[in-house]
Amino acid sequence: MAFTPATEKLIQALQALPGVGVRSAQRMALQLLEREPETGQRLSSALSDALTLVHKCPQCRTLTEDDLCGVCANPDRDASVICVVASDVDRAGIEMSAAFQGRYFVLHGVLSPIDGIGPETLGLVELVELARSGEVSEIMLALDDRLESEATVHFIKEQFKESGLTVTRVPFHQMKSGALDQADSRVIEQALTQKQTLGFEHD
Amino acid sequence: MAFTPATEKLIQALQALPGVGVRSAQRMALQLLEREPETGQRLSSALSDALTLVHKCPQCRTLTEDDLCGVCANPDRDASVICVVASDVDRAGIEMSAAFQGRYFVLHGVLSPIDGIGPETLGLVELVELARSGEVSEIMLALDDRLESEATVHFIKEQFKESGLTVTRVPFHQMKSGALDQADSRVIEQALTQKQTLGFEHD
Ligand SMILES: [Zn+2]
Ligand SMILES: [Zn+2]
Repeated sequence: MAFTPATEKLIQALQALPGVGVRSAQRMALQLLEREPETGQRLSSALSDALTLVHKCPQCRTLTEDDLCGVCANPDRDASVICVVASDVDRAGIEMSAAFQGRYFVLHGVLSPIDGIGPETLGLVELVELARSGEVSEIMLALDDRLESEATVHFIKEQFKESGLTVTRVPFHQMKSGALDQADSRVIEQALTQKQTLGFEHD
Repeated sequence: MAFTPATEKLIQALQALPGVGVRSAQRMALQLLEREPETGQRLSSALSDALTLVHKCPQCRTLTEDDLCGVCANPDRDASVICVVASDVDRAGIEMSAAFQGRYFVLHGVLSPIDGIGPETLGLVELVELARSGEVSEIMLALDDRLESEATVHFIKEQFKESGLTVTRVPFHQMKSGALDQADSRVIEQALTQKQTLGFEHD
């Protein structure tokens, strides 16, 4: 074994981060242990703080440090529209545009059976329950047009087939789920005005 | 602010890792908080364990969890030759070749004034002290031929000008400091047999 047991464990733990292979993990671990213990200490506390303090809003699954997220806790927000986004980053982007007054629901992913991400992981049961609360009249899907996102749109739409709710979709032109915080606010505002109602095929 | 304060802190801490920019740090933080808290917890403990358990061997600066590293603690190793390497990875590569019976000294870097890495950071005072211990007759430099490594070789050689010790250098053909664990053991063995004695220009 090239490294000490605790170093090997650290290398393995770092490899679990997205986009980090074995060589980068080695480089990170050695840099922290050889030259930057304070950086490592800071990361260790930041991780344990964030994991303790940050949780999903029980209503909309936005990451928050409060009981309810700021949007859900705000009585001035329009409770009749729920904007469904793939990620907290997308919610942040739409919030920054200030062009949406309703509430959110954050999936934290899209359907991807190969990665073990099914409807439960995305909180779709909670979404259907939330929509049944009575105040909600529209589910607005703000997902891009990649294959898995399309499958997710289709799946969610089917959940509301008999519900009497309107299901709409915001057109994503040159925008990607998970990157809406980088989109121009005017582009987001424009997309929101162009939402389309999704029809149900009745059998 | 797009994310909660603890999330922002975590993103900043992740950005301090080598090769991690703001987008990757965001992606890492959100993946941990949204879907993989156990991965985050494991990384947090692995970091704090490694930072507590792993330290530099007081004699040779190899990363170890023991009082002295395995090589320094082994009385059968030849105390007359010290192999100077840039990184723990290089020491590991040479150990794996089993072609060297002496001891090591790990610089954990090479001279790089622009990064604030000077002789003290590399432990060169300790190296000179170690070499003065009486048992040592040869300092064998196993560094590659990049600009900073050449400057480091030159600097170390100068430290031993009046010492009476032999300073040798192992030729690195197609090998790089920080990657010797990936070099073929026979190539390392070959390089060790071809070490050259560095002469001093007397003024
Ligand atoms: Zn909420
Ligand atoms: Zn040692």
